[in-house]
Amino acid sequence: MYEEILPELIVENDTKLVLLVLDGLGGTTDDRGITELEAAHTPNMDALAKVGSCGLHRAVGYGITPGSGPAHLGLFGYNPLKYQIGRGILEAFGVGMDVGPGDLAMRGNFATMENGIITDRRAGRIPTELCEKLVEKLKDKITKIEDISVDIKAGRDYRFAVVLRGNGLSALLSDADPQMTGKPPVKAMPLSPIAEKTARIVNKFIDMATEILKDEHPANTVLLRGYAKLADIMTSTQKYGMRAVGIAVYPMYRGLARIVGMDCPDLPGESIEDEINMAKKLWNDYDFFFIHIKKTDSYGEDGNFDAKVKVIEEVDEKLPQILSLNPDVIAITGDHSTPSVLKSHSWHPVPLLIKGRYTFADDAQKFSERECAKGIIGHIPAEAIILLMMADAGRLKKFGA
Amino acid sequence: MYEEILPELIVENDTKLVLLVLDGLGGTTDDRGITELEAAHTPNMDALAKVGSCGLHRAVGYGITPGSGPAHLGLFGYNPLKYQIGRGILEAFGVGMDVGPGDLAMRGNFATMENGIITDRRAGRIPTELCEKLVEKLKDKITKIEDISVDIKAGRDYRFAVVLRGNGLSALLSDADPQMTGKPPVKAMPLSPIAEKTARIVNKFIDMATEILKDEHPANTVLLRGYAKLADIMTSTQKYGMRAVGIAVYPMYRGLARIVGMDCPDLPGESIEDEINMAKKLWNDYDFFFIHIKKTDSYGEDGNFDAKVKVIEEVDEKLPQILSLNPDVIAITGDHSTPSVLKSHSWHPVPLLIKGRYTFADDAQKFSERECAKGIIGHIPAEAIILLMMADAGRLKKFGA
Repeated sequence: MYEEILPELIVENDTKLVLLVLDGLGGTTDDRGITELEAAHTPNMDALAKVGSCGLHRAVGYGITPGSGPAHLGLFGYNPLKYQIGRGILEAFGVGMDVGPGDLAMRGNFATMENGIITDRRAGRIPTELCEKLVEKLKDKITKIEDISVDIKAGRDYRFAVVLRGNGLSALLSDADPQMTGKPPVKAMPLSPIAEKTARIVNKFIDMATEILKDEHPANTVLLRGYAKLADIMTSTQKYGMRAVGIAVYPMYRGLARIVGMDCPDLPGESIEDEINMAKKLWNDYDFFFIHIKKTDSYGEDGNFDAKVKVIEEVDEKLPQILSLNPDVIAITGDHSTPSVLKSHSWHPVPLLIKGRYTFADDAQKFSERECAKGIIGHIPAEAIILLMMADAGRLKKFGA
Repeated sequence: MYEEILPELIVENDTKLVLLVLDGLGGTTDDRGITELEAAHTPNMDALAKVGSCGLHRAVGYGITPGSGPAHLGLFGYNPLKYQIGRGILEAFGVGMDVGPGDLAMRGNFATMENGIITDRRAGRIPTELCEKLVEKLKDKITKIEDISVDIKAGRDYRFAVVLRGNGLSALLSDADPQMTGKPPVKAMPLSPIAEKTARIVNKFIDMATEILKDEHPANTVLLRGYAKLADIMTSTQKYGMRAVGIAVYPMYRGLARIVGMDCPDLPGESIEDEINMAKKLWNDYDFFFIHIKKTDSYGEDGNFDAKVKVIEEVDEKLPQILSLNPDVIAITGDHSTPSVLKSHSWHPVPLLIKGRYTFADDAQKFSERECAKGIIGHIPAEAIILLMMADAGRLKKFGA
């Protein structure tokens, strides 16, 4: 947002900004007419809402239900329509692999081939344990093809991710996946001459994997698709002049934070307490703290209203620990909504609360979708959040004289 | 909106969506501080507002007063700044003519020529009845020029519309209208070599018409301008994957609905009841129902506050008949505002109410501009409405993983 003027406006100072993201925080009203956030007892967030500014944001756009990738890019201030993250990269992030500049990530399926015909694109949905075992076999024997190093990691069920690392890789390839059963396997074809080397390597990988798996059943071959390289994203340090750290437990969000140049330290445990402790520990080393809480979304997806309420309440209970660090600006929001009545991500606007030194104390009396609709921030694109935080922190100077 | 990602998000299912448009619905406060919608007794809309989501939309942009063309394109989800509908087409729609792909529409004036000089560009504002008589004369004698068929229809006073149909027509012509009196008539000039044939045909039409009218007075010649072909608009079926029908009485709105690919069945009568009955009849044949009520706008333009209130109340009274069809999502709004204090279209934001399965039951307690300003939808561009409706109907899948 405002990329044409932003570089000239950035000021560096010693303020501390906290973006606390409760994944899937937003909801919609259920039969009783309330949402999880409304049902939750959140005295600390409510107190902040009273003295801070509230509003609603849309991660990608009106009516658009965002996946985690676009939703977080929006929160980090990047236009999710401009920077689209490939499926292969999200798959790799999801299983905790690193994807660096120049790397090529892709999604893999174990599949069944009989007499040269793909008879099951998911190898009978083999269990994760078998997937892990088979991936170990592949990893043992395929570490390098030509000058390209090969990394593989098992996902859930029949899925895995592959990351190729080396020079001259391109994502301009056709899927090595017939997309339906009853057909022979297909090779990856270069869609541009610059992808010829990559196609050769991908096809070699498939041949080697098929040879290694030939005595297995039903998982005796692999399909590859969703080739993706990192979009050329300016890091948060370059874009905002802030040293940024992502504190997140789940690999997907750690990966997303890394894309925009955040450091992502390993955590000693998976609790909210562990995350807050990490923020405390790193307080002097960074300017911008992205703290990600996953379980609100997980319970929303499960349709478990009460459990989602409990996670919100737990975060609220721990909030004073974050506030005791005296951040100059704190924003509390979600990346998107995950109403438990829908059991999935949704397009509903996401509640947002910002408290800084100069935030307007608007009429919102509680942190909830309904109160946020009354707030002075109004309805904003997610990309605007970081700018509002920076403005309050004195990190954006005047535009024009 | 979001045209770069939309095609991949479309889901087809068997949900039914109703967009009920009260033309010119929005108002501004009068001396008593109320609007027509606030004054109207609308128990059914108010009940929907209580359980649904409210907001305000702008048809084209902040401060922009839209004509019917851009206002409806916005409601249909097309950017009215990107897709501009030529004057000739709106004129033809307004008198109930069809304009198909490749056709060229234009506006005509009867005018007065004396001694080779245009002395009145509106032929003394001849009455509509005379206009109709003269158009009949022209229609009798001019049906085809070269291989191009010619259709003419009278408008109000001295105005008429011409639609040319055939191959190779172009709108890249200069006006055949001196724009001021005291000058000789001017020929249509091709602004590009591809328009040479069209210029020849337009000029031939003017010559023939002038010959036919030579003994008339004051309407003894014609001026033509506003040449326009249909913009290359993706139809609603292509764009949204919905079979859409437009239920409207007035030719202008039927024409606008047709441009975006809606079917527009003939109605047996002009009442709101007739329109609702048509929706009932076609309920199983379409996914998206655009129902257009004209009179709110007409009375607004007349400055007749009370009559506009009455039309709103009549629609409210009939609303249960639409609701009894059990649409999955219904949106009630206007295409723009027509405050009776202004006696014209205006730039004021337009009240919007959406009720679907997953709409947030916000704090708006009544359907009115003031309550809509409190709603959770906020202020949105008109183009977003159809996306919010589709999202609620499960017709838009997740963007990104």
